[in-house]
Amino acid sequence: MTRVVSLLEKVRLKHEPQIPEILRRGIRGLGIEEEAVQQQAEEIRTHFPNTCGRPVVRFVAGTGPQQTTPVRVGVVLSGGPAPGGHNVITGLFDAIKKYHAESRLFGFRGGPKGIFTASHVELTAEIIAPYRNTGGFDIIGSGRDKIDTREQLAACADTCRALDLNGLVVIGGDDSNTNAAVVAEYFVASGLGVSVVGVPKTIDGDMKGAQVETSFGFDTATKVYAELIGNVCRDAKSAGKYWHFIKLMGRSASHVTLECALQTHVNVALIGEEVQEQGQTLRSVVAQIADVVLRRAKAGKNFGVVLVPEGLIEFIPEIRVLIKELNKLLHGDRDFFEKIPTFTDKKEFVNKKLSKDSSYVFNYLPQRIQIQLLLDRDSHGNVQVSRIDTEQLLLEQIKEQMAEWEQSGQSDCEFQGQHGFLGYEGRCAVPSDFDADYTYALGQTAAALVAFGRTGIMSSVRNLTAPRSEWRAGGVPLVGMMQIEERQGKPTPVIAKALVQTEGAPFRRFAACRKEWEMGDDYVYPGPIQYFGPPELYGALTMTLLLEQGQA
Amino acid sequence: MTRVVSLLEKVRLKHEPQIPEILRRGIRGLGIEEEAVQQQAEEIRTHFPNTCGRPVVRFVAGTGPQQTTPVRVGVVLSGGPAPGGHNVITGLFDAIKKYHAESRLFGFRGGPKGIFTASHVELTAEIIAPYRNTGGFDIIGSGRDKIDTREQLAACADTCRALDLNGLVVIGGDDSNTNAAVVAEYFVASGLGVSVVGVPKTIDGDMKGAQVETSFGFDTATKVYAELIGNVCRDAKSAGKYWHFIKLMGRSASHVTLECALQTHVNVALIGEEVQEQGQTLRSVVAQIADVVLRRAKAGKNFGVVLVPEGLIEFIPEIRVLIKELNKLLHGDRDFFEKIPTFTDKKEFVNKKLSKDSSYVFNYLPQRIQIQLLLDRDSHGNVQVSRIDTEQLLLEQIKEQMAEWEQSGQSDCEFQGQHGFLGYEGRCAVPSDFDADYTYALGQTAAALVAFGRTGIMSSVRNLTAPRSEWRAGGVPLVGMMQIEERQGKPTPVIAKALVQTEGAPFRRFAACRKEWEMGDDYVYPGPIQYFGPPELYGALTMTLLLEQGQA
Repeated sequence: MTRVVSLLEKVRLKHEPQIPEILRRGIRGLGIEEEAVQQQAEEIRTHFPNTCGRPVVRFVAGTGPQQTTPVRVGVVLSGGPAPGGHNVITGLFDAIKKYHAESRLFGFRGGPKGIFTASHVELTAEIIAPYRNTGGFDIIGSGRDKIDTREQLAACADTCRALDLNGLVVIGGDDSNTNAAVVAEYFVASGLGVSVVGVPKTIDGDMKGAQVETSFGFDTATKVYAELIGNVCRDAKSAGKYWHFIKLMGRSASHVTLECALQTHVNVALIGEEVQEQGQTLRSVVAQIADVVLRRAKAGKNFGVVLVPEGLIEFIPEIRVLIKELNKLLHGDRDFFEKIPTFTDKKEFVNKKLSKDSSYVFNYLPQRIQIQLLLDRDSHGNVQVSRIDTEQLLLEQIKEQMAEWEQSGQSDCEFQGQHGFLGYEGRCAVPSDFDADYTYALGQTAAALVAFGRTGIMSSVRNLTAPRSEWRAGGVPLVGMMQIEERQGKPTPVIAKALVQTEGAPFRRFAACRKEWEMGDDYVYPGPIQYFGPPELYGALTMTLLLEQGQA
Repeated sequence: MTRVVSLLEKVRLKHEPQIPEILRRGIRGLGIEEEAVQQQAEEIRTHFPNTCGRPVVRFVAGTGPQQTTPVRVGVVLSGGPAPGGHNVITGLFDAIKKYHAESRLFGFRGGPKGIFTASHVELTAEIIAPYRNTGGFDIIGSGRDKIDTREQLAACADTCRALDLNGLVVIGGDDSNTNAAVVAEYFVASGLGVSVVGVPKTIDGDMKGAQVETSFGFDTATKVYAELIGNVCRDAKSAGKYWHFIKLMGRSASHVTLECALQTHVNVALIGEEVQEQGQTLRSVVAQIADVVLRRAKAGKNFGVVLVPEGLIEFIPEIRVLIKELNKLLHGDRDFFEKIPTFTDKKEFVNKKLSKDSSYVFNYLPQRIQIQLLLDRDSHGNVQVSRIDTEQLLLEQIKEQMAEWEQSGQSDCEFQGQHGFLGYEGRCAVPSDFDADYTYALGQTAAALVAFGRTGIMSSVRNLTAPRSEWRAGGVPLVGMMQIEERQGKPTPVIAKALVQTEGAPFRRFAACRKEWEMGDDYVYPGPIQYFGPPELYGALTMTLLLEQGQA
């Protein structure tokens, strides 16, 4: 049976991405302008002696690379899927084929592991045709493996040599691009002339910087979530009896939550970065929400919507301390702890050993979560903090608070809650018009960077709030994006995640409006992503991008 | 601050619903053709002596109702929201205003309670303008109260008299329409000349019959869910490591699950009606899924998607028996049971009293669910079966089964699961083009039924797979849709829910394909609802409707 293709997919297959004017020239019509980068920290230079200090590049009109032989490129998808990944590949493919008809593209299967295990497939015009403008990473699959050891690095080099590659394009987030920088450095050090080019991907929106205005996928994913949150807001208001607690993806940064709040005007949106900056406790977060619930109840509004970023719990300082203490404790006394027969006894043991502050937090948690923390640990014996259903935890605590206030006569609010998680629904959505075009341009730019022999560089397409034709294309050195962070106890150069800046325009806009949204119910209902109709509709950008670029 | 209106809402406000050719004539250009209905059961005639045996009506070209004075209509939204409710109201409004400029429309607030408590608002052109083609029931809110007692019925009559209404339009599902029939009968018996007209609403798709091809909202809601399920399928395939268990709304019928399966080709979709017909046990349902998981694992596919209708657990015969026994037991020995100190003791007590079969099922359930069943009961002391997270329960059981098979060396499948619930995300979505037009036509038809003085009748717009102009408009007597069911221990005439027919075309299509879908991963990705672009795209109908009407 032939595969059934949905009606939307059928029409989107025909979409021709609009690309920056400069890229229409094709690689042979390009030249490069360079811009020196700032001197970097000693530790970074030590780790990247060969690829440190390389310039930012910008494509301008020119006469193409010196050599015009075919290019052979390998491409890999790394980490969680994000809408537009397939178009990076089609953009890459179209650009190298236009450059030279005998250029070839190879896809590594199942993520970075596919490189060092030499699992690949040649991506031909026929193979990629049904993936144009589609969501998902299913064309070659993805994976979370890192290219870590000397053996893996050597195996990668072997694969690239065997395929006679000129370039390796790594589509991934901060970790994958940090890894790409390591591979690039290794290749240069080994005298292997394979360009390693990164492409900024992640729905979380935390892979960005001075030269990278946004990661691809953020636009589409937040539009999918905002559609659904808008629908839930309308449901809350229509039924008038539920508080909806919605957890959103974003473990390390709260951009998704912030964007969705700006799009829908929910009553409460917790921003992890602010919670951390203000040193909030779990109790104070609960109190903050309970206060809104109570005030709305007094205004006759027994309903509302609360957004909770996936990583919230880890942003709360006291929880971080608790987790650290628990991990230390459970590691040190692991054997003894395992032998304690009952949960009650385990809990007593733990309570005796925790600091006063941590013990206080631990006992505030519902038993369900305590059990999870003590018993449901990972293979290293660590507490699995990401498994905590934060939105459910908050909902339960609010419920308790309301019941307490009711008993003490402070409120007779009828609190009923619903909770849910939005994540997997958005990572493989059909890319928005923006993401379809942006990723195609990123792929074309990556192709040009390979043809020009640049390595340890990230494909960069900028000026994104302008019309497509005015977008700028170039590359930013991966090492230049690095800073030193502690990893496994030692200082390590990494591309840091871009967190929500409480001084930044998106957060400031949110902070200026939230008081009004707390008590209001004039929600905004963005509706589903459109691909046709008025251009201002299908071409809408995220508030985050517009505000950061000073366009809203 | 003025309300922010989303870009999509802004353009949809301008959408002019296409209506059946016949309705374009306006009420003054209509006439009625009648069709006698079959004689009904004695019990039904006894309950509805005045409104029983009324004919089906169909609007044809004519000269309008005898009287052409303004009409005054009340409208109420009942039960859970469904996309298109606002357009029933705008269709109604436009039709009565076209009929006579002095006609007036009143909205009852917060559901049927708004009628007997006389809480209403006049719906003017200005008020309804921003609600055209929008989702939600927020224009006047909704509620689940029934008009049950003599006092409530009398109060409704008083309200209608006070407002000098000619008609009352009840927008609701099977229960609300059953209730509308009771009100209609009461009004006729009391000599009150107020037409009561029902409108078939529910995203569950179970309010349909010979003259009602589909309930409004089903089209939009299933499109929203299918979009998200398609995205999750693509994610499952891209990441290649998760099984997603998705619960879908539909407590009494599995139409939503069936439609979504037909749209996306998920690996497993459980249809409650089939589970019941085949007398499946919880163990056999688990075994059925585990078998697919195992076979896919052997084919290297450690991923998949399973759809679970919300009501599944209640379709499993042994669970029904268990719940019945538990309710009887906990009612009978309530005081004694409450005093048993620990859960373990409570469980022992219950196990001694249950039948062998029920005890066997009860002990198969995870402790979490056992606790829920014994401790988390409603105000009448009944087990809250709807609170059981069926999709999570199944996921846990499959996990256990896989671990068992792994230990016994039968499989080394790496089973990882994710679970979620899709419900509130779809009930208030922006109505699809179909639902926007269908509801507008239902509203216009309801207006005509009121103007022609018909009562105890449901607005019926048919021939829905044809172009809008060829849709037929008319009414079907509510009593004619009834059958006798046991309610609170006594035979009661009700409009029965239309369940999935395992002999019907939609189920047969599913049954013919599911073997292939079990092992496949050629999922279909419907993408978000479109309102522009090629007509075959924004005009797509549900597979359920097409198959039931013999059009696919």
